[in-house]
Amino acid sequence: MGECEVVFFPDEKKVKVPSGTDLLSAALKAGIFLASSCGGKGICGRCKVKIISGQFSAEPTGKISAEEKKNNIYLACRTFARGDIRVQILPQAKLPEGSSVVLFEKGEELKLFEVPVPEGFSFSPPTKKIFLSLPEPSLQDSVSDLERLNRALRGYGIKNPDVDLHLIRKLPQILRESNWNVTVTIALFNGQKKIIAVEPGDTSNRNFGLAIDVGTTTIVVSLIDLKDGKTVGTEISFNRQATHGDDIISRIVYAEDKEGLEQMHHLVVGTINEVINTLAYKNNVRHNEITAGVCSGNMTMIHLLLKIDPSFLRREPYTPALNFFPVLNAAEVGIRINPAGLLHVVSGVSSYVGGDITSGVLITGIFQQKNLQMLIDVGTNGEIVLGNKDWLICCSASAGPAFEGSGVKDGMRAVSGAIRSFNLFDSEKASYGVIGEVAPVGICGSGYIEIVAELFYAGIIDRSGSLLEKSSRVRSGPDGMEFVVAYGSETGHGRDIVITQIDIENLLRAKAAIFAGIRSLVGKMGIRFSEIQRFYIGGGFGNYLNIEKSIAIGLLPDLAIEKFVFMGNTSLAGAKAFLMSADARSLAEEITRKMTYLELSRENSYMEEYLSALFVPHTSEELFPSIFKEH
Amino acid sequence: MGECEVVFFPDEKKVKVPSGTDLLSAALKAGIFLASSCGGKGICGRCKVKIISGQFSAEPTGKISAEEKKNNIYLACRTFARGDIRVQILPQAKLPEGSSVVLFEKGEELKLFEVPVPEGFSFSPPTKKIFLSLPEPSLQDSVSDLERLNRALRGYGIKNPDVDLHLIRKLPQILRESNWNVTVTIALFNGQKKIIAVEPGDTSNRNFGLAIDVGTTTIVVSLIDLKDGKTVGTEISFNRQATHGDDIISRIVYAEDKEGLEQMHHLVVGTINEVINTLAYKNNVRHNEITAGVCSGNMTMIHLLLKIDPSFLRREPYTPALNFFPVLNAAEVGIRINPAGLLHVVSGVSSYVGGDITSGVLITGIFQQKNLQMLIDVGTNGEIVLGNKDWLICCSASAGPAFEGSGVKDGMRAVSGAIRSFNLFDSEKASYGVIGEVAPVGICGSGYIEIVAELFYAGIIDRSGSLLEKSSRVRSGPDGMEFVVAYGSETGHGRDIVITQIDIENLLRAKAAIFAGIRSLVGKMGIRFSEIQRFYIGGGFGNYLNIEKSIAIGLLPDLAIEKFVFMGNTSLAGAKAFLMSADARSLAEEITRKMTYLELSRENSYMEEYLSALFVPHTSEELFPSIFKEH
Repeated sequence: MGECEVVFFPDEKKVKVPSGTDLLSAALKAGIFLASSCGGKGICGRCKVKIISGQFSAEPTGKISAEEKKNNIYLACRTFARGDIRVQILPQAKLPEGSSVVLFEKGEELKLFEVPVPEGFSFSPPTKKIFLSLPEPSLQDSVSDLERLNRALRGYGIKNPDVDLHLIRKLPQILRESNWNVTVTIALFNGQKKIIAVEPGDTSNRNFGLAIDVGTTTIVVSLIDLKDGKTVGTEISFNRQATHGDDIISRIVYAEDKEGLEQMHHLVVGTINEVINTLAYKNNVRHNEITAGVCSGNMTMIHLLLKIDPSFLRREPYTPALNFFPVLNAAEVGIRINPAGLLHVVSGVSSYVGGDITSGVLITGIFQQKNLQMLIDVGTNGEIVLGNKDWLICCSASAGPAFEGSGVKDGMRAVSGAIRSFNLFDSEKASYGVIGEVAPVGICGSGYIEIVAELFYAGIIDRSGSLLEKSSRVRSGPDGMEFVVAYGSETGHGRDIVITQIDIENLLRAKAAIFAGIRSLVGKMGIRFSEIQRFYIGGGFGNYLNIEKSIAIGLLPDLAIEKFVFMGNTSLAGAKAFLMSADARSLAEEITRKMTYLELSRENSYMEEYLSALFVPHTSEELFPSIFKEH
Repeated sequence: MGECEVVFFPDEKKVKVPSGTDLLSAALKAGIFLASSCGGKGICGRCKVKIISGQFSAEPTGKISAEEKKNNIYLACRTFARGDIRVQILPQAKLPEGSSVVLFEKGEELKLFEVPVPEGFSFSPPTKKIFLSLPEPSLQDSVSDLERLNRALRGYGIKNPDVDLHLIRKLPQILRESNWNVTVTIALFNGQKKIIAVEPGDTSNRNFGLAIDVGTTTIVVSLIDLKDGKTVGTEISFNRQATHGDDIISRIVYAEDKEGLEQMHHLVVGTINEVINTLAYKNNVRHNEITAGVCSGNMTMIHLLLKIDPSFLRREPYTPALNFFPVLNAAEVGIRINPAGLLHVVSGVSSYVGGDITSGVLITGIFQQKNLQMLIDVGTNGEIVLGNKDWLICCSASAGPAFEGSGVKDGMRAVSGAIRSFNLFDSEKASYGVIGEVAPVGICGSGYIEIVAELFYAGIIDRSGSLLEKSSRVRSGPDGMEFVVAYGSETGHGRDIVITQIDIENLLRAKAAIFAGIRSLVGKMGIRFSEIQRFYIGGGFGNYLNIEKSIAIGLLPDLAIEKFVFMGNTSLAGAKAFLMSADARSLAEEITRKMTYLELSRENSYMEEYLSALFVPHTSEELFPSIFKEH
């Protein structure tokens, strides 16, 4: 049982591992983040690598085709080093990193990120820099160094701020070396004031903050100038935790293993820090000049970020360790900004309705409206909020990862090469839109929705979702019946891109879970769909969503099109509002306290609603009058 | 330049040091704390050791007598290891440690320490333990773990307390392992509330605090039960920093050297922790059950305790790094109590009027009186406060260490074997009181005062302090004229105990500095001595002080005897009040802000006052009517 040297190409990254180590773990140790939806269980078939040479053993798997076998392609998670070995990383298996991620069309990017912070919020960031030119001490005026600082700060309305011992220890030197001209960074939170930094000279015009959307799939960070609230830049990266599974439950399970929590924590912190590095480099900002950050994310992501055991999130009765977060120290969490910088976390309601949803409610302003409004954020879970200024109710429907392109045959994330829209003419001729305008290599969530809708319009699937042989594109494939979305001649990899009968059933289960959640909230409150005046669609998913087709498959309720509003990344926008305004910070807490969480597993009607919603669009035709009128 | 092994007897403590290391440093490295008033400069002659065998070199010194030389006795600080060496520690050179210190007569001890906390202060310690039996989470009640705790705490009037991340990380486990029965420790300070510990089970009746007097010479710690404010025990130890000098200036100078600050910090923290260990052991209290401490001490001691560069304390314009202290974390300072425990520090006015004096004002209640009152605390410096409920003024007179038994030939601290009182009959026959009722080995401050007064009464010294040959006890000695206080036949070491002409001049300078300080305050405020209604004497020094004789030599003003009140250790008592009552905590701050500091070096009249006070009792006879009436 000696050590094996594994060399990963094309970057020639070398790593030593004990004999018997799987190549997915070896890659991780080498700092290479391979895609793995299942978290290394040999199920998803994403972590394919090509063995160039060396000694290894591999477990049999159905995920490798005969042709791939011939080309020495193996699943990294099921292949074990038995000696020195050379491995080729395949481009499609590698998680995109940093700025190489193209999630959105050019131009769309800014529109998406620049969700405006609602008007009427005060501009009051949690940190403030004040330049002080202090009088030198003399026998007539020999007050202590800290008192001299505090005396000057009182002129700015800051009385007796708190201060940490390690800063006090440096104070006498800094004050004297700077000839008593210093810039003080003050943190203001929960009615407290704290001196978090004292720097020589006048740096008062260099104060930055971060709005951080900690997503299961992607991490998006905006750098904000805290002088004026302007966004300096925004960067995005895939969450490296994805190497241990796409969905929240895989991540929690992994974190329950010994060392797992530590690893998950470091992966997400590492991703955030890389994005920060990029932002800092591109915008000529030093890490020390960033004095505050706000994280918005689902409860699992936040638990992992803070290195808190997430295991009770997935165990009945699903209790988070905490849902209101104290103001943290960035260094303590591991986030690379000014070590004394603050880290805020947006509060969440429950294990499955986190701070990202609070952010959404904050940004949409549902909680201030007389009219009823609804917000939906579709990812692996569909979080749904209904309410107005008097009440708010929310739930989380477990949709599974189909809409995120996982667990479906040719599914992929909404990145370059994904089919994101689809039209079918005369049951035969197809046209599609591809992200990045390249040859397609797979289908993302919005693409699947359009495909299912078009199949339904064309009568190629029936209301139960069964593929009917009403098109030459329908055929029998290795996994049963399938519909060819794009032929190999058109695709980036030369293979046909298909949607299978199994895929369709997966997608219908996902949409049924979400629609049943919507119906449960509405039913619980005894209202009718028509009473909902506005329907917000949040989350990255929303961007390419075709509303009519989403209604057609029964994912969204049959409301007038003009009632739907795409909100883009509400989690990021909420984090930005939280960073910029004390009003937003106190409203976020108010919203969280106000929201009633409906646990769907306790609702008897939920399963009934779910079963009814498994049909296209639904068993009850009267719920979808526009569909049955048109078609 | 190899390594030398130094073995210290009688404890056979071994240590390896580079060749050329002085034996004082080697002893320190071995954990042996030798007395050294001068801090290793070869001046005080206290760190005598006997070389048993081995290779060494020694610098010449006048502090070793011919007889001592014959017995292989050397000054540790001037003797350097040149090979392996065996060294005998002499009992008189070793600093007393822990409970072996007998500072006071039996019985007096308790009286001294148990300065009652003034009545009318609320009982409100800074930490509070609350036992909570929480409802188990269920699907109907699935709020987060922290929210569940906070919900229960709201029933005790504690709303949204702060909490550190590392505690949150442990919370889910603790709550479940304890079956939701936990004891929460809450810290309350500056209007803030913080959860600092969560323990399984009901430990609410085990909550302790420490009152810590951080003195230059001694460290005194009382263990207080925070349930009822009762003192569980008190222990004392010499401050191990004394190995680097007796007085504050030597300590600051040492701390200015590289590593010096770190060493000084560790020495004082080490002393405090040893005393805490003794207290914990004797009283069956676990360190974790101690959740708060309050330190009261002079500015230099507090700077060194907190590891803050003290160098600006001794440089004009004498500015401390800070004088109001944030609530600190005990672990951060290194104090061994519950790692999340609080450490408060009593605020002080200036570099030379520290928290020990604030404590004194707090305990005496000067700041609440209509009448004028004065407080004096004599150590190396004499701190003096004058005032009433309307105003407070204070100063610090640099007396030098003579009253602490340093810089005077047979001087010693007020420990067992010190002559503490003295009477002379017919210029010849002497009687004296010795601490511990043993044969005398030296003279402490109060002894010196009585000796000078008796010499003055008997006409053996004139008003300028010159020894006159009016007693057979006056003779010429190696250092000039001297008066034999105790003959060798009576003493513990068989040698004569004397007071020399130089000693007398030292003592007169010390008393003149203090009296000039008193006069400066009184003069500044334009009042007469007779207006002072009460004169408090604080500090360990006060205990044996003979008031009449102190007036006779001109140390204290000539007030009616009944106006003088001995207060004992007001620093410790103040720390205790601060620990037990929020009123005391806010009053201490109020007192500090209210006190005006008079910098004597800026007062033109001070030098004049000092010169006038160099006489016995003073040049102005009218200032001491009782003396010139009686004698």
